[in-house]
Amino acid sequence: MPLTLTQLLLAVAKQAPELEVRIERGENLPVARFASLLQAASDEIAFLASPKYVNQLCQTQASAVVLNQSAWDAHQGSLAVQGIVITSNPYAFFAFASQILHAQSCDDEITAIHPSAVIHPSASIGSQVQIAAFACIEANAVIGDGCRIGSHVVVGEGAQLAADTTLYSHVTLYHGVQIGARCIFHSGTVIGSDGFGFAPYQKRWIKIPQTGTVRIGDDVEIGSNCSIDRGALGDTVIGRGTKLDNLIQIAHNVQVGEDCAFAANIAIAGSAVIGNRVQMGGKAGVLGHLSVCDDAVISSCTLVTKTISKPGFYTGVYPIQDNAEWEKNAVSLKRLNALREQVKALEKTVNLQLGKPSEKSSSKIL
Amino acid sequence: MPLTLTQLLLAVAKQAPELEVRIERGENLPVARFASLLQAASDEIAFLASPKYVNQLCQTQASAVVLNQSAWDAHQGSLAVQGIVITSNPYAFFAFASQILHAQSCDDEITAIHPSAVIHPSASIGSQVQIAAFACIEANAVIGDGCRIGSHVVVGEGAQLAADTTLYSHVTLYHGVQIGARCIFHSGTVIGSDGFGFAPYQKRWIKIPQTGTVRIGDDVEIGSNCSIDRGALGDTVIGRGTKLDNLIQIAHNVQVGEDCAFAANIAIAGSAVIGNRVQMGGKAGVLGHLSVCDDAVISSCTLVTKTISKPGFYTGVYPIQDNAEWEKNAVSLKRLNALREQVKALEKTVNLQLGKPSEKSSSKIL
Amino acid sequence: MPLTLTQLLLAVAKQAPELEVRIERGENLPVARFASLLQAASDEIAFLASPKYVNQLCQTQASAVVLNQSAWDAHQGSLAVQGIVITSNPYAFFAFASQILHAQSCDDEITAIHPSAVIHPSASIGSQVQIAAFACIEANAVIGDGCRIGSHVVVGEGAQLAADTTLYSHVTLYHGVQIGARCIFHSGTVIGSDGFGFAPYQKRWIKIPQTGTVRIGDDVEIGSNCSIDRGALGDTVIGRGTKLDNLIQIAHNVQVGEDCAFAANIAIAGSAVIGNRVQMGGKAGVLGHLSVCDDAVISSCTLVTKTISKPGFYTGVYPIQDNAEWEKNAVSLKRLNALREQVKALEKTVNLQLGKPSEKSSSKIL
Repeated sequence: MPLTLTQLLLAVAKQAPELEVRIERGENLPVARFASLLQAASDEIAFLASPKYVNQLCQTQASAVVLNQSAWDAHQGSLAVQGIVITSNPYAFFAFASQILHAQSCDDEITAIHPSAVIHPSASIGSQVQIAAFACIEANAVIGDGCRIGSHVVVGEGAQLAADTTLYSHVTLYHGVQIGARCIFHSGTVIGSDGFGFAPYQKRWIKIPQTGTVRIGDDVEIGSNCSIDRGALGDTVIGRGTKLDNLIQIAHNVQVGEDCAFAANIAIAGSAVIGNRVQMGGKAGVLGHLSVCDDAVISSCTLVTKTISKPGFYTGVYPIQDNAEWEKNAVSLKRLNALREQVKALEKTVNLQLGKPSEKSSSKIL
Repeated sequence: MPLTLTQLLLAVAKQAPELEVRIERGENLPVARFASLLQAASDEIAFLASPKYVNQLCQTQASAVVLNQSAWDAHQGSLAVQGIVITSNPYAFFAFASQILHAQSCDDEITAIHPSAVIHPSASIGSQVQIAAFACIEANAVIGDGCRIGSHVVVGEGAQLAADTTLYSHVTLYHGVQIGARCIFHSGTVIGSDGFGFAPYQKRWIKIPQTGTVRIGDDVEIGSNCSIDRGALGDTVIGRGTKLDNLIQIAHNVQVGEDCAFAANIAIAGSAVIGNRVQMGGKAGVLGHLSVCDDAVISSCTLVTKTISKPGFYTGVYPIQDNAEWEKNAVSLKRLNALREQVKALEKTVNLQLGKPSEKSSSKIL
Repeated sequence: MPLTLTQLLLAVAKQAPELEVRIERGENLPVARFASLLQAASDEIAFLASPKYVNQLCQTQASAVVLNQSAWDAHQGSLAVQGIVITSNPYAFFAFASQILHAQSCDDEITAIHPSAVIHPSASIGSQVQIAAFACIEANAVIGDGCRIGSHVVVGEGAQLAADTTLYSHVTLYHGVQIGARCIFHSGTVIGSDGFGFAPYQKRWIKIPQTGTVRIGDDVEIGSNCSIDRGALGDTVIGRGTKLDNLIQIAHNVQVGEDCAFAANIAIAGSAVIGNRVQMGGKAGVLGHLSVCDDAVISSCTLVTKTISKPGFYTGVYPIQDNAEWEKNAVSLKRLNALREQVKALEKTVNLQLGKPSEKSSSKIL
C-alpha cells in the first residue's frame, strides 16, 4: 500500500527526528517504492545523493524526487516532477524511507514454528518468533521475542539471541554464542567455530581447545558465508552497529568496535583489536595481535602489518598495469634496495668529484 | 558401458559438429573413461594437449590416445597404442568426450521427490524433476523440467529455475532470484543475499533495503561457497555461459557478461560492469562502479582500480622473494617517490656541472 | 570435575611421554580449567609461554601456573601461587592439558542417531556413532566407529570416514570422498565439489567432468566455509596432520603434504604440490602446477608465482602507508624500470665524464 509523502515524512521523523526534511510540493502524492532516477515510474520516488547524477534529474519519470536545497535551487526551473522533498541528507532519507516503504510492501509475516523444526525442550522461545523448516534449536538455547529463524538454521546449545534478530537459512551458531538484538545474519554464515589454535610439538600440531565464545552486539549485520571464530580462552567480540559484508573471516579473540563497516573478503587475524567506526575495503587484512584505532580507513587489498594509532586513510596495494610493463617493474622492485644504494653511491661520487656536498633534503628523506 | 571410438566420435560430433576429428586407427576399440597419459590402463583413453607432456606419450598404457596431427607426425613411429584419434583440438575433444563417457558411467538417476522435502503448494514443479531430502521450495517458486535439487537446498519465495539446472546440497536461493537453464551451482553457494548498502547517519549505518534481485543466464556454473548479492534498486546480473570458481563475491548491482571465467576468491565490488569473455585469476578484485571491457585478462591477486577499456593482459601483484630481501625493498618502496626525486636532482646536478643536457629518452619517460 | 596437578600430569604423560614436565609445588592442588594469567580465578591454571607476558606472572590470581625453568629461576621469589608446574614447553603442555580438562568438563555425549536423519540402507554405520538431526547419509557411505555427524551434514554416495572423525553442522561431503581418522571439519565446509575445469572451444567454455575424488589423511582439521575440490582425472590429496583455517580454497588435483598449517583465506590453484610442514599466512596463494618444498614459510597476502625449492621464509606484500604517500609511490612504481635505466645511464655519464669505472659491486647486483 503506497503512502503519501506526508505519511512517509512522519514515519521517517519518528526514526530520525534530527533529520532536516520538508515537502516542497506534493504533500498528498502517493509513492509505493524507491527506484533510481532513470528507472523510476509513475508511483515511485527517486533521490539525488550526488551531484554526479544531476543530469538524470531532469529526465526522471518518478512521481517524486528527494534532493538537497542547493540542487533544488539550481534545478527547480526544469523539474516537472509532482513531488519534491528537500533534505540536508537525501541518502539517509532514502535509507529510512525505503525501509518504511519496504515494510509496507511485505505481507504480514506468519508467526509460526514449522512442524519439522527440531526444538529441544529446554530451549526458551520468545513470543512472536518465527522458525522455519528443518531448523534445529538445541538445549538451553534462548530465542528472544520477535526473532526470525530461517530454514536449516542451527542454534547451538546454550546460544542466546536477543529480540528481533533475523537468521537467514543455513546460518550456524555454535554452542554458547551470544547475539544482540535486531541483528541480521545471512545464509551460510558460521558463528563460533573453533579458532585456529595449535601448539607445535615434535613437528606436529596439537589442538588447543577453544573454550571461549563469541559475543555480538545489537544491530550488527553479517553477510553470507562469513566465519566468526570463538575465542581460545577469552571471547571474540563484535561491537554494536558494526556491518560485515560477505565471506569475511574474524579469527579467535578478535575485538571489533562499534559502527565499523567491513567490505567483502576481509580477514582479521587472531587477537587483533579494531576500534570504533573503522572502515575497511574489500580483501583487506589485519595481522594478529595488532590494533587499529577508531576512525581509521583501510583501502581494499591492503594488509595492516603494524598497529595503526592515528586515524587516517591507509593504503598498500600494488598498482595494476599492462602485464609486460609489470614484469619489468617487478624485476626492478626485487632489486629496489640495491638501486637505492647505487643512487647513494653515485651521489657521493658526484659530490666528491665535483666538490659539492649532497643536498640536505634528499639525504634526510633517504 | 564402454563405447567404441567410432561411437564416441559420433556422439562428440553431435555436440560439436565443427570440431575436426578422425580416427587414425582402432575404430572398434572400446574405451570406458579418460585417464592421464601416465595413469591410464587398458580400457582407458588419454590425450596429449600440450607438447610439454610429449615424453609421456611413449610410456602410456592407454588403449587409445587423442593428439593433434603434428604430434602424430612426429611420434607415430614410437606409438604402440591400439587406438589413435587425431583432432585439431585435443583438449576440447577430451571435454566433450569425457562428458559423454561420464554420463554413460552414471546410473540412471532416480527422478523423484524425497518425502521429507517441504514444497509449498503454490510452487510449480516441472516434469522429470529430482528433489532430495530436506529441500525447501517456497511459495510461488518455479522449478523447470529436469532440474535436480540437492538435499537441504532452499529455493526462496518466487525464485525461478529454467530447465535442467542442478543445485547441489546446501545451495540457498533467496526470494525472487531468476536462474537460467542448464546451470550448475555447488554446495554452500548463496544467491540473492542482501547487498552491502548502508547510509551513514549520525556516525551510524542505516540499512538500505535491497529491493532488486539476481538474474543469472543459461549455462552458468558457480562453485561452492560463493556469495552473489541481490541488487539495491536494480538487479545483479550474470551472463550466459560464465563460469565462477569457489568462494567468489559478486556484490549488488554488478553486471557480469557472457562466457567469462573467474578463478577462486575473486571479489567484484558494487555496480562494477564486466564485459564478455573476461578472465580473472584467483584472488583478483574489481573496485566498485568500474568497467572491465570484453576480452580483458586480469592476473591473480590483481586489484582493478580504474576502468579498463582496452582488451589486454593486466597485472599488479607484489613479487615474492626471500623475506629478508623483501624487508629491505619494502622500506625502499615506501620512499620510492623520494628516490625518484633524488635521481632527478642528481641528474640535474651532473648535467649542470658537466655542461651536458639530460638524455631526452629518459626525461621523456619520467 | 577438576583434576589434581598430579592427575593432570599423568594424563598428559600418556599422550606426550617425551614432554619434560614436573610439579614444583601443589601436587594435590585441584584445577578445573585453563585461563589467561590476567583472567584466571581460584580453580584455574594459567601458563607463561612467552617472556613478553612475564609481568603478568606476579599479578595472576590463578591457583597454578605452568612455566619453564628459567622463568621459575628468575621469578620464584615473587610467585605466591599455590601450584607450580615446570616444563621445557609450556605451550605444548597447555595444549595437551587443556584437551584433557576440556574433555572432563563435557557431559557424556549421547551416542545416538536422530530419528530425522536420512540414512540409506546400504550405508555402513560404525559403533558409537552420533548422527544429528537432518543429516543425510547416502548410498554405500561408510561412517567409522565413534564418528560424530552434525545436523544437516551430507555424506555423499560412497564417501568414507575413518574412525572418530567429527563433522560439524552443514558440512557437505560429495560422493566418493575419503576422510581419515580423528579429522574435524567445521560448518559450511564443502569437500569434493567439482574442480574448475573447462576447455575453451569457439569462445565458450566446455565443462570437463571432474572424475577424481578427494583423499584426506588422519588428524586433519579444516575450518568453516572451506572449499576442497575433487580432482579432474586424479585425486586431490591432503596429508595427515595438516590444519586448515577458515574460508580456504584447495583446487582440483592439489597435493598438500603432512603437518602443514594454512591460515584463513588461502587459495591453492590446480595441481600445485605443497610439501610437508609448510606454513602459510592468511590470504596467501599458490599458482597452479607449482611446487612448494617441505618446511617453507609463506607470509600473509603473498602470492607464490614460481616453484619454491629451498626451505625458507618468503614474502611479497605491498607495504601499507598513508594513502597520499602511497599514491605518489605507486605512480613511481609503475615507472620503476625506467628509473633504473635512468640511473644506469646517469652512472655511465658520470663515469665517462669523470674518468672513473663504475663500481663493481653495484653493477653486479643490477
